[in-house]
Amino acid sequence: MLTIAFYIAVTAEAMTAALAAGRRNMDWFGVCLLAWVTALGGGTIRDILLDHYPLVWVENPYLVLLVCGAALATIALARVVDKLRWPFLLLDALGLVVFTIIGCNIGIESGAHPIIVIVAGMITGAAGGILRDVLCNDIPLIFRGELYATVSILTGVIYSLGLMAGLPVDLMVIVSIVIGFTLRVLAIAFKWEMPKFVYDREMRK
Amino acid sequence: MLTIAFYIAVTAEAMTAALAAGRRNMDWFGVCLLAWVTALGGGTIRDILLDHYPLVWVENPYLVLLVCGAALATIALARVVDKLRWPFLLLDALGLVVFTIIGCNIGIESGAHPIIVIVAGMITGAAGGILRDVLCNDIPLIFRGELYATVSILTGVIYSLGLMAGLPVDLMVIVSIVIGFTLRVLAIAFKWEMPKFVYDREMRK
Amino acid sequence: MLTIAFYIAVTAEAMTAALAAGRRNMDWFGVCLLAWVTALGGGTIRDILLDHYPLVWVENPYLVLLVCGAALATIALARVVDKLRWPFLLLDALGLVVFTIIGCNIGIESGAHPIIVIVAGMITGAAGGILRDVLCNDIPLIFRGELYATVSILTGVIYSLGLMAGLPVDLMVIVSIVIGFTLRVLAIAFKWEMPKFVYDREMRK
Repeated sequence: MLTIAFYIAVTAEAMTAALAAGRRNMDWFGVCLLAWVTALGGGTIRDILLDHYPLVWVENPYLVLLVCGAALATIALARVVDKLRWPFLLLDALGLVVFTIIGCNIGIESGAHPIIVIVAGMITGAAGGILRDVLCNDIPLIFRGELYATVSILTGVIYSLGLMAGLPVDLMVIVSIVIGFTLRVLAIAFKWEMPKFVYDREMRK
Repeated sequence: MLTIAFYIAVTAEAMTAALAAGRRNMDWFGVCLLAWVTALGGGTIRDILLDHYPLVWVENPYLVLLVCGAALATIALARVVDKLRWPFLLLDALGLVVFTIIGCNIGIESGAHPIIVIVAGMITGAAGGILRDVLCNDIPLIFRGELYATVSILTGVIYSLGLMAGLPVDLMVIVSIVIGFTLRVLAIAFKWEMPKFVYDREMRK
Repeated sequence: MLTIAFYIAVTAEAMTAALAAGRRNMDWFGVCLLAWVTALGGGTIRDILLDHYPLVWVENPYLVLLVCGAALATIALARVVDKLRWPFLLLDALGLVVFTIIGCNIGIESGAHPIIVIVAGMITGAAGGILRDVLCNDIPLIFRGELYATVSILTGVIYSLGLMAGLPVDLMVIVSIVIGFTLRVLAIAFKWEMPKFVYDREMRK
């Protein structure tokens, strides 16, 4: 089930990234690359940091084709995709929590400390979007918008605490997905944001 | 022969990167760093993704000196280099295909799937320029200009297919270089570009 | 002693990064992430390039908490921190040389060539600030401001030459710290900068 959700989430992330590329008038290659970085970049960074090789898409190269296919399909279907705003926000929210749980699992497998397990989940969920924004030359949205990485961290904390308490993995997967997904959707609906740190005076670095 | 072409290409990439640094008024350290990232960054990213250690310039540290020397020489020779626009475009085109073939070879060595071999070639050829543009705070040029990464991908496809068909390596190196180089030069001369994906309506991520 | 200086430097880097995040109105998560990337990113990039695992903060996860704690404390104490401009510049200068020496040590341990040892020191000292500026969507300050990476390189050269000449490690640590620190402070006080490479004419890449 987690695997199916993973493929759905990768596809959805690739498609929203393709739209972001379109808003910047990138060419078809740029569209594919941005989709790839957004959909698979979080897991790639996590695996590099944890020395966990081979990378997911190196082991399973059809993921690269899936991501590029989804991105190119988005070019053809841009008008349709645009009308599906809410379905895509829901898929993106699903992706966030599914990526997080997969990331936590890989952290646990590699024998990391619980803090690092949660960090691994957060990187998997959130780093792809940061890479996308850096390549698009924006300050990452995640630093300013509705709760996103925070949802990922909370999901990771609930999941890890549950497993450490000895609860069954399947139960914790479902519980974490439901809580994380609900929280993200509520955050979008009610524009919940983290408090901001606004600091004006210039201090030389 | 591939090795000689590699050194020429690294030098040429370092020099064009140094000019890019000069256009942004970077200091001498910035010039060297940008040259290094542009000339050696693609291979570095490829090796990190494929877990292929030690990195080329860690094993052969004189490459670092070559790149910095080429960059600093460019400062002194900026007026001359500027007049050599076409020779540099040709060297850059040569670099693109040579880097691609070297990247494919490393992908093959590491036993990767043909899709990943082609991706490894493309990263080697094109990622240095993306890093350069990110450090210069531009949207990567490669997402919008004349055929560049596409040339790299095509070169990789031809080379890989040839090897899989059992053709001799030396022949395929020459054939791929000739085709890739010609294609890139034609793309510059006739301003061949990938179609762009232009998408206006805002969709919230 | 180097370990204590390391913790102080990590804390100071995290706090100055938090102020940089505040100037861009990032949320609390962004503040923590920017602090993390700035304080621990240099060492992380070095370890990835040298294939030196596990990463420092994966092995010692409390560093992540220290960095986040320092960043959040900075939010509460922004007015106080702002008045401590000189102490922070001094701590940042200390951090630069301490990070450099630690980076050189790891380069030496991994059996790298002296050039790479110096590069490892420089990356440890300077790459965190480059990552911070890329995430903040600035052209890295290090490419244009007062001597910074140059101080790191000089510190690494002195330290490495001393060890190669057979001088005792403890002596070289102290000598390198004193020289590097003094140089950086003088560079700030007298606005010493590297010469810039200013180049106007456009050359197509």
